[in-house]
Amino acid sequence: MCLDKLKQEVLHANLELVERNLVISTWGNVSGYDPETKLVAIKASGVHYDELETKHMVIVDLDGNVVEGEYVPSTDTQTHVALYKRFTEYGIHGIVHTHSQYATMWAQLGMDIPCYGTTHSDYFYGDIPCTRLMTADEINGEYEKNTAEVILERFEGDACKKMNAVLVHSHGPFVWGKTPLDAVLHSQVLEYISRMAYCNYTLTGGENQKIQRVLLDRHYNRKFGENAYYGQKKQ
Amino acid sequence: MCLDKLKQEVLHANLELVERNLVISTWGNVSGYDPETKLVAIKASGVHYDELETKHMVIVDLDGNVVEGEYVPSTDTQTHVALYKRFTEYGIHGIVHTHSQYATMWAQLGMDIPCYGTTHSDYFYGDIPCTRLMTADEINGEYEKNTAEVILERFEGDACKKMNAVLVHSHGPFVWGKTPLDAVLHSQVLEYISRMAYCNYTLTGGENQKIQRVLLDRHYNRKFGENAYYGQKKQ
Amino acid sequence: MCLDKLKQEVLHANLELVERNLVISTWGNVSGYDPETKLVAIKASGVHYDELETKHMVIVDLDGNVVEGEYVPSTDTQTHVALYKRFTEYGIHGIVHTHSQYATMWAQLGMDIPCYGTTHSDYFYGDIPCTRLMTADEINGEYEKNTAEVILERFEGDACKKMNAVLVHSHGPFVWGKTPLDAVLHSQVLEYISRMAYCNYTLTGGENQKIQRVLLDRHYNRKFGENAYYGQKKQ
Amino acid sequence: MCLDKLKQEVLHANLELVERNLVISTWGNVSGYDPETKLVAIKASGVHYDELETKHMVIVDLDGNVVEGEYVPSTDTQTHVALYKRFTEYGIHGIVHTHSQYATMWAQLGMDIPCYGTTHSDYFYGDIPCTRLMTADEINGEYEKNTAEVILERFEGDACKKMNAVLVHSHGPFVWGKTPLDAVLHSQVLEYISRMAYCNYTLTGGENQKIQRVLLDRHYNRKFGENAYYGQKKQ
Repeated sequence: MCLDKLKQEVLHANLELVERNLVISTWGNVSGYDPETKLVAIKASGVHYDELETKHMVIVDLDGNVVEGEYVPSTDTQTHVALYKRFTEYGIHGIVHTHSQYATMWAQLGMDIPCYGTTHSDYFYGDIPCTRLMTADEINGEYEKNTAEVILERFEGDACKKMNAVLVHSHGPFVWGKTPLDAVLHSQVLEYISRMAYCNYTLTGGENQKIQRVLLDRHYNRKFGENAYYGQKKQ
Repeated sequence: MCLDKLKQEVLHANLELVERNLVISTWGNVSGYDPETKLVAIKASGVHYDELETKHMVIVDLDGNVVEGEYVPSTDTQTHVALYKRFTEYGIHGIVHTHSQYATMWAQLGMDIPCYGTTHSDYFYGDIPCTRLMTADEINGEYEKNTAEVILERFEGDACKKMNAVLVHSHGPFVWGKTPLDAVLHSQVLEYISRMAYCNYTLTGGENQKIQRVLLDRHYNRKFGENAYYGQKKQ
Repeated sequence: MCLDKLKQEVLHANLELVERNLVISTWGNVSGYDPETKLVAIKASGVHYDELETKHMVIVDLDGNVVEGEYVPSTDTQTHVALYKRFTEYGIHGIVHTHSQYATMWAQLGMDIPCYGTTHSDYFYGDIPCTRLMTADEINGEYEKNTAEVILERFEGDACKKMNAVLVHSHGPFVWGKTPLDAVLHSQVLEYISRMAYCNYTLTGGENQKIQRVLLDRHYNRKFGENAYYGQKKQ
Repeated sequence: MCLDKLKQEVLHANLELVERNLVISTWGNVSGYDPETKLVAIKASGVHYDELETKHMVIVDLDGNVVEGEYVPSTDTQTHVALYKRFTEYGIHGIVHTHSQYATMWAQLGMDIPCYGTTHSDYFYGDIPCTRLMTADEINGEYEKNTAEVILERFEGDACKKMNAVLVHSHGPFVWGKTPLDAVLHSQVLEYISRMAYCNYTLTGGENQKIQRVLLDRHYNRKFGENAYYGQKKQ
């Protein structure tokens, strides 16, 4: 019952990736975590979004073993579950992976995305980190699990609460949130700010000033701080 | 009665922001001013455009106090009302705030947008001004009210009549017009010319010539000057 | 009767500008020429495309005098008729003016658009010319008529047959063809190649090689030369 | 019977080019090959996609002679059949030609597209090759056949199996796959990575690092290698 609801939620979030122009074809995937059962629902591997149904939401445990479903889960499943193992204690219950164009372009640069303005700091507390290059052993070994490892190197303690995205070097973004749909929104915002940052960088030859720290704090905190006053209810 | 009409008008203008690709999610806001009652209708804070209804148009007075409505008004309300206090005498009855991509990119540069052609001067009389950096005190204090203050530093006397837009440094555009819908059109044109100006700037490394003053005058005046002859009626 | 058909054709072509993302709001205009009556149908000035009907197609003679219709014709009417006076003998019966983004960006540079590939030479025989800056007298005088004058300086003899577009410096493109719809297609192709040329120019810092002359000839001629073999019938 | 099915498949693939924003007007074409009859179905020349029907799929033999159909086949037919002659033994049964914007921009540069990330190597094994300039004789002679010749210079042996695309210098991409629809997908991915590569190149002034070889191998092989594990079935 609970898992049915999770699967519906994860299906909906996957389809929203198409709506928001973040994926094409069979690319990308959304997963969702259920804290009661400690199980994850994730998109099946290589299924085209045009054909996606509830049955393609595969249930796996936190080691990535298939618990329910007739399909092979996403090849990135080991990355998702390794992130949940560390992030669920901070309330992260949704993870998204895309190859959205401008975020992926920054990943291909191997650069952190500089925080140039309030659109960025309304959602992400500072520069979006990019992982280091992986070693040949990491790539030839348990590649997807090791992908999570290099991500986690950039996130100490509860840092994942204020920074809901990472770029995997030469690859693309992984993004998370309190719910699968929350993670989709963060993916959309990441793509939006990635495009603006590209324009800022190219116009100034990389000399664009970053946002003032005090303004970054103000904007982040008016949405997510203790005394947040954006929206209809305190968060 | 009159306020109902205002709320309808402001709701419609808010939804047009989505239609014209100027906002996503809950971002941005439109307000409208009623000269009879001296009241303002403005979008409620943090409400998603997909769910936006008349009831989300909150009525506030020119000090930003809620007069009617069950929702919290936009966090940017203090910026809107402070602008109305100065601009209504020049017939400005609609204000828009967005984070539209290219206009926001220029705001993140902290640069005025150079007037490179007639598309720009058909609507805006000269370069689009960008505000100075705000001080830590201004940011930590009454931030939204102070945002209006740094805007107003760039607008002496009736300058707001011929320049319907400003960029707030590191943040994004505020735009106005005779009506809420007029302000939406100006927001759309601002985004359009911001994108072209980006391309002009990057292609020439910032050496693009600005429009001749005499041509700027001709185009602005054939639409908005005393002897305007664009359109079906003299304006 | 004939004029009704012309008006339908011109209305349809105007609406296609919206379909192909070449105009917004009230911008741009299409006209069509009827060789029998020597009359021109052109969009009324300042009418929004959402409201455009047959009645907004105004009939003018080749001096720009309104012959039929209750609306004021486009402010650019004098430019259109002055071009028809020179171009109709070469079979040009449709003219389009837009501020489409990338073509206008090149106009704002005051640069001819270099011919970098076969997509360009499939439609336009060589670089797209840009007019010189107009003088203060030309701008302050009969501006729209003088706009045609600086265009015509770039077109000797029958050059308009193989070059169906021009950029007006600091302003935007005027484009033509055998029919109004043909001119719309040329406007769409112009925008397409303008965008690619922008990317080519910025990637190489302006050092992109132009197409070989022999390849330019081959592609132009397989569509429009004496022994053309593109399409279902010889043109 | 078999040819009817082929024509349906090729019609569908042609229409998908429009859906995926890879062509406008009458541009581009898809062909499909039937190994039993050794015949090819290809789009008729110069037919607008809005009017495209099964009857516009012309059947030609591997020398390009029309075997069935009342329409003139694509002007690019000789390029298609010359590629099939070499590629069918490796299972290539679909070929696409477009002028999609960013891929064509790279072709106009005359540059191979560098492999900057896994989105690229998920489909193409290494840099996308660009052909050399053609000689005047090659252009003035059997141009379309010679276009295939300069393409084939870049593909020795079975190289077409792991590299499903090529850029023709100053012109645009030819792309292939196991089926016509497969070739359309590769065209769409090519456009996607071409745009990202443009951004990477301009942001770094051409100094962007390429993907590590070991990562390129890992991603290509997890989709198409002997031990591929992407998707629901081994390929």
